[in-house]
Amino acid sequence: MSVMAEEITEIPAVLRRLLSDGRNEVEAVARLIRHRFRRAVFVARGTSDHAAVYGRYLFETELGVPGALAAPAVTTIYGSSIDWSDALVVAVSQSGHSPDLISVVDDARAGGATSLAITNDTRSPLALAAELVIDVRAGREQAVPATKTYVAELAALAMLVAALAEDVSLVEELQPVPGLIDRWLETGDIEIGGMLSSVTAAAGVLVLARGFNLATAQEIALKLTETCGVLAHGYSTADFEHGPIVLTDTGHPVIVLHPDGASSDHIRDVIVRLRTGLGPVWVIGTGPDADIVVPGDLSERVSPLALVVPGLVLAERAARLRGADPDAPRSLQKVTQTL
Amino acid sequence: MSVMAEEITEIPAVLRRLLSDGRNEVEAVARLIRHRFRRAVFVARGTSDHAAVYGRYLFETELGVPGALAAPAVTTIYGSSIDWSDALVVAVSQSGHSPDLISVVDDARAGGATSLAITNDTRSPLALAAELVIDVRAGREQAVPATKTYVAELAALAMLVAALAEDVSLVEELQPVPGLIDRWLETGDIEIGGMLSSVTAAAGVLVLARGFNLATAQEIALKLTETCGVLAHGYSTADFEHGPIVLTDTGHPVIVLHPDGASSDHIRDVIVRLRTGLGPVWVIGTGPDADIVVPGDLSERVSPLALVVPGLVLAERAARLRGADPDAPRSLQKVTQTL
Repeated sequence: MSVMAEEITEIPAVLRRLLSDGRNEVEAVARLIRHRFRRAVFVARGTSDHAAVYGRYLFETELGVPGALAAPAVTTIYGSSIDWSDALVVAVSQSGHSPDLISVVDDARAGGATSLAITNDTRSPLALAAELVIDVRAGREQAVPATKTYVAELAALAMLVAALAEDVSLVEELQPVPGLIDRWLETGDIEIGGMLSSVTAAAGVLVLARGFNLATAQEIALKLTETCGVLAHGYSTADFEHGPIVLTDTGHPVIVLHPDGASSDHIRDVIVRLRTGLGPVWVIGTGPDADIVVPGDLSERVSPLALVVPGLVLAERAARLRGADPDAPRSLQKVTQTL
Repeated sequence: MSVMAEEITEIPAVLRRLLSDGRNEVEAVARLIRHRFRRAVFVARGTSDHAAVYGRYLFETELGVPGALAAPAVTTIYGSSIDWSDALVVAVSQSGHSPDLISVVDDARAGGATSLAITNDTRSPLALAAELVIDVRAGREQAVPATKTYVAELAALAMLVAALAEDVSLVEELQPVPGLIDRWLETGDIEIGGMLSSVTAAAGVLVLARGFNLATAQEIALKLTETCGVLAHGYSTADFEHGPIVLTDTGHPVIVLHPDGASSDHIRDVIVRLRTGLGPVWVIGTGPDADIVVPGDLSERVSPLALVVPGLVLAERAARLRGADPDAPRSLQKVTQTL
């Protein structure tokens, strides 16, 4: 068993720990910042950037607070100062070591923003640069591809938004998630067989979603790229229809995220259209018509925590079938330092 | 000659017309909105979304005004209301017909935002929905892949920022751009030969840039996907190092945008690393060490208007060499309606 596979199996325990031990910390942060911002700017790279995409949807839909993903080059390459007033800057990073993220947090703090680091290393330079910290408590992650830290970052963001919105139902929706993932991990192996064969043989893979699970699509695509060296692209189904839909004639496998919720009808229409294309279509969802079913009562807004898991398992398996080491992809280090 | 090829050759004339005839309109808009916003939210899809990426960098670097790309699903799928106060909403669309963009503009106006449509159809529903309009004056675009309207949208955004910042030097930097593109179009054919051969034969293409030209990378990638059905991905060089760099071992051709300016040293380092990979690396830039040189004195902040042109020519040629019709890619219409 690879370390990556082992760390995927730790996800439910990591979530249980964060949901119980992290709750006071998250609520204390929420109390401190509640009246100090009117917009949220997320700063992140790679996998954590996808957690940021999820955070942005949560802030906008649950709090009505406009969100944005920072463009670090504005600070680090062009040296420009932006108006940071009224901003909550949320830096999301497993390692907390990327110099560009730290530069943006420094600039934002100097400009009057409230700053918060969500990280797995509370003694990292990023955690020290930010005014406030939330520890995702995932334990040491040894495989280069992030798995349990990603899902923990999603959970920390959902807990933060629940605390800010004083939304008890969101807190309650999070509680069954570890158990649902546990159950899927016990039996999901059989389900992913067909998807695994076609992805293992593929030169390219398309991963599609809308809204909250855009994060999931982008993360599954990145994970397949990192571990298998396959050119995988995560698209919003809306953007996909503005051009990349021509790719359905090329035979690349298509993976679609299909949660039960507001986006469900839209995604169902997209799936019907995709099935007229040449490539196999694999649906990861919560309903019985999905190929890979994460069963149980999962609201759309918390579904990204669970729907990503089959994609992580897929990436680990496909890498091994392709003869690659999922724990240590070539050219990659665990801590990436970009300017 | 395809219609797409013809419309690419019209780009210099379109820019000259916009720079002269559009100036008063842009300045009038700038005067009206100057004191009415503290942040900018761009709403767009497909090609125009890449113009929005450029606009966002311009607003942040030249005006210090924080920018964001809207997530239309927040409005159209989840029906959530966001705080739109202090916002300038800039909808960018060639056709002005996408229902999701119109919904966001309607919601933003109702929420107190200042709204501006930048479009090639001033009688479109989007133009009517927005309070203010800038006409990009590109003339009718008949090929499905947008070319001249994209470059015109970039120019309109640069003119708007120049007027808002009262930055005479930015206006001056725009003036020589049509002439530089004209000159490149006269002789560039020969230069793109090698890049054209490798892209025509490729299953996947990577396009890399940082900062202002991230828009260019994403647009060249989308254009290759639309016209050739090739899986092409535009990456920020910083994000690329957080995972997708493993793709340099797969032999896919890599295209890098290398303007002369603040990002130049960073991009040069990336090129050195890329050249140790297995795929051919093609540099589109302004300096003599580029493979495809758009010569002349081109500042980095206006370089996206010119550096995209070799990529557009590449996409049109590669499509024909692959036996596809660049004017009418399969499964695509000129006006895409997404919800």
